[in-house]
Amino acid sequence: MRPADLDGLLRRVRRGDVSPVVAARRILTEPLERLEFATLDHERSLRAGFPEVVFGPGKTPQQLVAIVGRLFRRNGVVLATRVTAEGREAVRRAFPRAEVHERSGAVVLRRGSSRGRGRVLVVCAGTADLPVAEEALVTARVLGSRAELIADVGVAGLHRLFAHARELRGARVIVVVAGLEGALPSVVGGLVDRPVIAVPTSVGYGAHFGGLAPLLAMLNSCAAGVTVVNVNNGFGAGYAAHLINAGRRGD
Amino acid sequence: MRPADLDGLLRRVRRGDVSPVVAARRILTEPLERLEFATLDHERSLRAGFPEVVFGPGKTPQQLVAIVGRLFRRNGVVLATRVTAEGREAVRRAFPRAEVHERSGAVVLRRGSSRGRGRVLVVCAGTADLPVAEEALVTARVLGSRAELIADVGVAGLHRLFAHARELRGARVIVVVAGLEGALPSVVGGLVDRPVIAVPTSVGYGAHFGGLAPLLAMLNSCAAGVTVVNVNNGFGAGYAAHLINAGRRGD
Amino acid sequence: MRPADLDGLLRRVRRGDVSPVVAARRILTEPLERLEFATLDHERSLRAGFPEVVFGPGKTPQQLVAIVGRLFRRNGVVLATRVTAEGREAVRRAFPRAEVHERSGAVVLRRGSSRGRGRVLVVCAGTADLPVAEEALVTARVLGSRAELIADVGVAGLHRLFAHARELRGARVIVVVAGLEGALPSVVGGLVDRPVIAVPTSVGYGAHFGGLAPLLAMLNSCAAGVTVVNVNNGFGAGYAAHLINAGRRGD
Amino acid sequence: MRPADLDGLLRRVRRGDVSPVVAARRILTEPLERLEFATLDHERSLRAGFPEVVFGPGKTPQQLVAIVGRLFRRNGVVLATRVTAEGREAVRRAFPRAEVHERSGAVVLRRGSSRGRGRVLVVCAGTADLPVAEEALVTARVLGSRAELIADVGVAGLHRLFAHARELRGARVIVVVAGLEGALPSVVGGLVDRPVIAVPTSVGYGAHFGGLAPLLAMLNSCAAGVTVVNVNNGFGAGYAAHLINAGRRGD
Amino acid sequence: MRPADLDGLLRRVRRGDVSPVVAARRILTEPLERLEFATLDHERSLRAGFPEVVFGPGKTPQQLVAIVGRLFRRNGVVLATRVTAEGREAVRRAFPRAEVHERSGAVVLRRGSSRGRGRVLVVCAGTADLPVAEEALVTARVLGSRAELIADVGVAGLHRLFAHARELRGARVIVVVAGLEGALPSVVGGLVDRPVIAVPTSVGYGAHFGGLAPLLAMLNSCAAGVTVVNVNNGFGAGYAAHLINAGRRGD
Amino acid sequence: MRPADLDGLLRRVRRGDVSPVVAARRILTEPLERLEFATLDHERSLRAGFPEVVFGPGKTPQQLVAIVGRLFRRNGVVLATRVTAEGREAVRRAFPRAEVHERSGAVVLRRGSSRGRGRVLVVCAGTADLPVAEEALVTARVLGSRAELIADVGVAGLHRLFAHARELRGARVIVVVAGLEGALPSVVGGLVDRPVIAVPTSVGYGAHFGGLAPLLAMLNSCAAGVTVVNVNNGFGAGYAAHLINAGRRGD
Amino acid sequence: MRPADLDGLLRRVRRGDVSPVVAARRILTEPLERLEFATLDHERSLRAGFPEVVFGPGKTPQQLVAIVGRLFRRNGVVLATRVTAEGREAVRRAFPRAEVHERSGAVVLRRGSSRGRGRVLVVCAGTADLPVAEEALVTARVLGSRAELIADVGVAGLHRLFAHARELRGARVIVVVAGLEGALPSVVGGLVDRPVIAVPTSVGYGAHFGGLAPLLAMLNSCAAGVTVVNVNNGFGAGYAAHLINAGRRGD
Amino acid sequence: MRPADLDGLLRRVRRGDVSPVVAARRILTEPLERLEFATLDHERSLRAGFPEVVFGPGKTPQQLVAIVGRLFRRNGVVLATRVTAEGREAVRRAFPRAEVHERSGAVVLRRGSSRGRGRVLVVCAGTADLPVAEEALVTARVLGSRAELIADVGVAGLHRLFAHARELRGARVIVVVAGLEGALPSVVGGLVDRPVIAVPTSVGYGAHFGGLAPLLAMLNSCAAGVTVVNVNNGFGAGYAAHLINAGRRGD
Repeated sequence: MRPADLDGLLRRVRRGDVSPVVAARRILTEPLERLEFATLDHERSLRAGFPEVVFGPGKTPQQLVAIVGRLFRRNGVVLATRVTAEGREAVRRAFPRAEVHERSGAVVLRRGSSRGRGRVLVVCAGTADLPVAEEALVTARVLGSRAELIADVGVAGLHRLFAHARELRGARVIVVVAGLEGALPSVVGGLVDRPVIAVPTSVGYGAHFGGLAPLLAMLNSCAAGVTVVNVNNGFGAGYAAHLINAGRRGD
Repeated sequence: MRPADLDGLLRRVRRGDVSPVVAARRILTEPLERLEFATLDHERSLRAGFPEVVFGPGKTPQQLVAIVGRLFRRNGVVLATRVTAEGREAVRRAFPRAEVHERSGAVVLRRGSSRGRGRVLVVCAGTADLPVAEEALVTARVLGSRAELIADVGVAGLHRLFAHARELRGARVIVVVAGLEGALPSVVGGLVDRPVIAVPTSVGYGAHFGGLAPLLAMLNSCAAGVTVVNVNNGFGAGYAAHLINAGRRGD
Repeated sequence: MRPADLDGLLRRVRRGDVSPVVAARRILTEPLERLEFATLDHERSLRAGFPEVVFGPGKTPQQLVAIVGRLFRRNGVVLATRVTAEGREAVRRAFPRAEVHERSGAVVLRRGSSRGRGRVLVVCAGTADLPVAEEALVTARVLGSRAELIADVGVAGLHRLFAHARELRGARVIVVVAGLEGALPSVVGGLVDRPVIAVPTSVGYGAHFGGLAPLLAMLNSCAAGVTVVNVNNGFGAGYAAHLINAGRRGD
Repeated sequence: MRPADLDGLLRRVRRGDVSPVVAARRILTEPLERLEFATLDHERSLRAGFPEVVFGPGKTPQQLVAIVGRLFRRNGVVLATRVTAEGREAVRRAFPRAEVHERSGAVVLRRGSSRGRGRVLVVCAGTADLPVAEEALVTARVLGSRAELIADVGVAGLHRLFAHARELRGARVIVVVAGLEGALPSVVGGLVDRPVIAVPTSVGYGAHFGGLAPLLAMLNSCAAGVTVVNVNNGFGAGYAAHLINAGRRGD
Repeated sequence: MRPADLDGLLRRVRRGDVSPVVAARRILTEPLERLEFATLDHERSLRAGFPEVVFGPGKTPQQLVAIVGRLFRRNGVVLATRVTAEGREAVRRAFPRAEVHERSGAVVLRRGSSRGRGRVLVVCAGTADLPVAEEALVTARVLGSRAELIADVGVAGLHRLFAHARELRGARVIVVVAGLEGALPSVVGGLVDRPVIAVPTSVGYGAHFGGLAPLLAMLNSCAAGVTVVNVNNGFGAGYAAHLINAGRRGD
Repeated sequence: MRPADLDGLLRRVRRGDVSPVVAARRILTEPLERLEFATLDHERSLRAGFPEVVFGPGKTPQQLVAIVGRLFRRNGVVLATRVTAEGREAVRRAFPRAEVHERSGAVVLRRGSSRGRGRVLVVCAGTADLPVAEEALVTARVLGSRAELIADVGVAGLHRLFAHARELRGARVIVVVAGLEGALPSVVGGLVDRPVIAVPTSVGYGAHFGGLAPLLAMLNSCAAGVTVVNVNNGFGAGYAAHLINAGRRGD
Repeated sequence: MRPADLDGLLRRVRRGDVSPVVAARRILTEPLERLEFATLDHERSLRAGFPEVVFGPGKTPQQLVAIVGRLFRRNGVVLATRVTAEGREAVRRAFPRAEVHERSGAVVLRRGSSRGRGRVLVVCAGTADLPVAEEALVTARVLGSRAELIADVGVAGLHRLFAHARELRGARVIVVVAGLEGALPSVVGGLVDRPVIAVPTSVGYGAHFGGLAPLLAMLNSCAAGVTVVNVNNGFGAGYAAHLINAGRRGD
Repeated sequence: MRPADLDGLLRRVRRGDVSPVVAARRILTEPLERLEFATLDHERSLRAGFPEVVFGPGKTPQQLVAIVGRLFRRNGVVLATRVTAEGREAVRRAFPRAEVHERSGAVVLRRGSSRGRGRVLVVCAGTADLPVAEEALVTARVLGSRAELIADVGVAGLHRLFAHARELRGARVIVVVAGLEGALPSVVGGLVDRPVIAVPTSVGYGAHFGGLAPLLAMLNSCAAGVTVVNVNNGFGAGYAAHLINAGRRGD
């Protein structure tokens, strides 16, 4: 029950069209829509415009196509992440207009195309980190942000990073994706005064422990302004980057 | 050597006032000021207006007073974190105008007072988490953000959190501080579409492993938009929150 | 040798039908049936009515069918857990009346149907947690409890949970199944004054470490009354929930 | 706003004493008392009769005395856990009637004495585990359960445990406290068909890792019906045991 | 009730001196002494001749003196381990004949002196490992084994170890104590065909993790015949070594 | 160069048949046979009679057959462990007399049959632990020990263990194999005064961490006399048990 | 822009051939070649003569052949590591002169053959460690070092190691590769006064944790002069060994 | 027995001055001096000129003074590390010429002063890392290397590092000391083609786990040529750096 509905209900009580007992029961048994909390919850969907993301692993191609179709009809836009090759093929056949991103397995289906706003920059250390970087990029874009990618600028060859100084300065928020020792967010965070979202990846072996090494490194970054998401969580980084980027315009 | 300096140098080469050999040597031996990188680095200090933070642990009261004094004379503002009781007492004696925060051990010394802008909200789960929350709060404020605190709104009594729906909606970025199981950032992140910075604390015992339990929980949050900093790192959360909050105004 | 048997034996000693030496040897070499311990052990089987559960992994379909058949003949009821697709198919062919639960791989074979008593409520956070929740549900039911399931009520959308307030209040014990950050048991434990059994699942990736993240979170829950079982251990949770639920009736 | 209040408000709307606009605003801005959730939350306090427990560590004797006094005046009963020797002494001086438990540091202050109901049994493996066992015992008792202790029945001398078969059979729920390898809950769980709450303790050294060894052992118990709480968490075990024990009586 | 007692009881039943009912009750309520299990348990004490060891940590000097005195009166021999300096001083004053071992904090009190049999050899890598080695040595001796110590024969100077080839060959079981990387048991195990009991110590720092490094090394030893005890567990190693050594003589 | 060879060489120097220079060079360049160390090393092979064990994983069937054949020709006895199904089939075809143990993948090839001496007892907790128990059993037997197996005597049904009291008493050393919580070695170690070698297995899931849970439990056993080997290391346990068992006879 | 280029540019400014504005723009927009940093970076390539190494995993045979071809044309030498069997076959077909190392999967393609200088010695403990040892060997050789291998000299049979004393003495740097308990580097480091680079391998099981055991052991080595690389990182060890070995000649 | 001694002995056998039996006994019972191994061992002391280093922790001031004095008399040079303030004071009083390094607690006592050769460069990230850097510096110097320090060049302000390009190029081996995320070795390793020895420090908190974070980062460095030592092990790094540096001159 939205505020307007409550108002209508109370007016009918006033008019005698509805008894207090019936009105009380309805107020008490309705879901929480009427509360601040519900308002928040409702607003969240309205503003983000993106009520649900499909997490690919564990879904059959058939299930995937069904879910994507249903969400697309309801919301006009769907993002599915980490879709397998079979799943991507099935989505492509079912929805020829779907954007399919091969590296990350991200799939986007939407009406029209969003003109991104603001500026999210995704930076990644090695080519092996590209799937995670792409997931962040696609997520930020589908949510409505303008987002660019700079790839292969590892700390062992810093001149490649410095050549992109202009882009680093122009970003409102920077997502830095890195495996191995995960040192890149500290270097980037030392160069700019923007929020940096660090994404450790599982690229590495041995004492890398599936991404634990860069995760710990990023949590201990000597550069202030760095926050961290889970290993390989390009989606989470892109989502948070969009929220930060979107927050800049007056609301 | 800034671009203007380089321009002047080259003009003097043109005029014959400086030989090519001398000019080449100077260009080659100067520090990096001329580069985009250096520009970035320089801008960083200018914009953040906050070149260095004093980390209290391991410093004697005398060292602390000396460092705080030197930074204050140079920059007009100093933040020292995690200062011991002895250190706080020494700073207070040396700089009677210093703001001393007893819970967190944060000490601020500045000229004039900053009128905070934007809105950072710091939320914490239990009273034992207050020192970390206060560190985030003080950091965001000293950097120039308006920042408020909501304390003691743990997940085992959610009505206390819901009573603050208005403040949650009004924030541009929310810092959520929690020990024990670290569930609060997920709940807050599910209520609002703002960036949430989660700070695990070492409040707990046994299988808490000094903050590992809430750290892992926060990294695995089911709510999108949550990023994480190191255990007890109120400073880092406040710093990142300020960058996000400050980024909203046109720059 | 049960107490009655011992009594009979001693009477025959009294009557001279059995010599002391023979009686002593028999008492000393019989299994432990005569002791309190044995009594406990024996009672356990009688009351639980459920002497053995078949753990599916590592058993071939043939082995599985053989074991299920033997236990069914002896006890009239069998529960097998985590049976593979092949195993389930083999059991179905061999015992057409078997109940086969596809999500969890649980298989039940019994004579008649149990009228469940009391009320066990199983709550799970995400659809990916359903296999574990189903295992808990089936286990509690086959042991004789009435058990219901509420699915997909994660902490990032709490209104879905609150809509089930009535069921939460009506339960005698609540099993809460959650992966990712494992925050749901704390929220549920904060709402009701019932015993909550928390089951972490391996649903997650990266710094989830196969269920370690929610396991630690649940062990550190800020809500009193929460106890924890092993990762994905739906069976253990259902079993403990049944014992708690069954204990309510006078015995 | 409770249901009765809502009913009254609506009647006044009906009578025209309150306008729909004013009523709507009040309904929308009141705290959540009206909801099922709030009902649950309220009921929780009423039934448990125990709104808050004081966690001793980090509190000065003065703070402790103040908090205990305030809670006692409001609720008539207070439990404080892990109170230091100084804190216990201060409480004793301030409240001569306080029950002070030296081993566990638990302090109870209440009006009258509770006649415990049901039967909680606390079993502990070694004398070094007694502080944790006592915390569980005191917690269960102060909440209203009848609770008994069996101490020093480790697995390396099982006859001592078996001598207590009668008590084991008579319990409605058993709390088993053990350090070192944490094997006792499995043995107890194999003897009885009661819910067993296992509490690992930090008693051990080296590869014990502060309680990790028995914690993992208990989570992997081969005996069904065993659930686990955090290391040294006697309070949590006593609380859960009380909920299980109390649930037996018809409600 | 021992077999002889049972025999006597049954004979009295036969004579009519005891009724079957009374006899049955006694058999059923006696402790387990009559069983194989009890026999084992009883024999254990008789053979090991060493019913209890006093673990020093957490005991006050007064408690220690009391316990040592009581055990000495009952058994004629007591071993207390890891006794603090204060405790050792108190024991020395109370029992002037006590053997006090300063490095390990082991204290022995016994009547007469045992002539050790067999040959246990304790080898340790560095001088810092001596407290643990001494604990093993004292334990093996007080249990009745002849035991010798070779100290400071680390793997970085193998000639010192090789100089003791004769002793290595003459031992029936070898306890090898080592911190740091814990390599010594593998080297010793490669030289002799005797059982080797490896004891990791907490001597080290950083990535040593309090003994985890040598513990893992010893568990992964490439030399067959090496078994391992807990970090710093000289007592456990000495005890096991004695059992192995004692087992050699015909029993 | 053995002592006899050295003696002969020196006599030839004495006789002038060999010059001091030539003799010195030979002494200095020969392998270490002459030293105590070498003596030890040599003796080891002679006494153990078992110079090398073939570790199956990573070897092709062809490699396996070749290695087994070569070792058999040289030593007359070979043990290969953890051989895959393909490898076992290949060995069986190549050496029809080979003993192939299906559960553990152990393969033995030898001339004649060894009459085992002494008594090694292998006890295992669950049927899933049988492969590891079998590996221990086969290893001890092939080395020359008499060895027996007691299976499926878990701690949750202790009467099954107690029924084997006679065998437990008759053993000279007991290998206890257990997964899950790894409690069995403590129980066995509490019943007998024999050396107990505990073998954790990887049987378990979730917070079992591939055998870490029982490994830690066993290292922290409250029963003295328990030593531990690596997870699933049946071979190592069997080898150590043989050394302990063999050491009993006068040498 | 190299120093010579800068010199030329400045001379043209002097001559009036280039305006200061144009020169300034060029200096400011060129890559970093002009800086000390760039000089370092450039020198690095020139001296090491080895600008890039191809990491095989994750690359298809086609991608591999393309990358190898491109790098070979540019640099005249390529090293690819951990190439799969399919990749090796593809490279062999495309470049018949390629050296393909089957154990390690290392592939080298170069013009002419390098006459190695200095002396790198690679020592490995077991045959299962050979792939990692070979990777180190091939890497050191392709970079220009003379490198030799000693295989199968584990610590459980030290005479095999001692037989190679001459080679150990002749090396300028020694790479020691070991799995299991990783004790070999300590033994080697105790014998020679050369830098030792220790490489833990993942050869082991159970509490080996994929190489963690030897990694920790090597980091805690009691022999000074031992440094460590990541688990299985033969390439890194070979690379560092070459840098150490190459540094001996006057530069 | 050195080769010359053996030669003399054999000549006496030849001359009949010594019987073959006596000579054989002497050769067989002498320590290992005669072997390559012993030669190596002996050479090691001679070349390194530094037979033993005193590890301060756990030694009383008296013990320390005694050990330092004994080693100084025997060798003319002593290095003691991590000496406490009391120990340093005691050494200073006993040996007024001792060099005492306050930050690291390193103490050096030697005759004359060594003219360092080659060039070891020690670089450290933050001022808090200075104690470890100083330990490395002092160690390398006392062993005979020329060694310099560059302090406070963290990755968050790279221009400070780049200002030292000249020194970086001039070094033969670089020790890089860093806490927090441990990124500096990767950056340095990317700039130069020298061996880099990375030393993680325990400077950090929370998810730093006492140095684990930078240790893992350094082991996973993307820059080839980086090897790693234990947390805070400045001594080990300085020792290895000296061996690398010293190896450059012809030997």
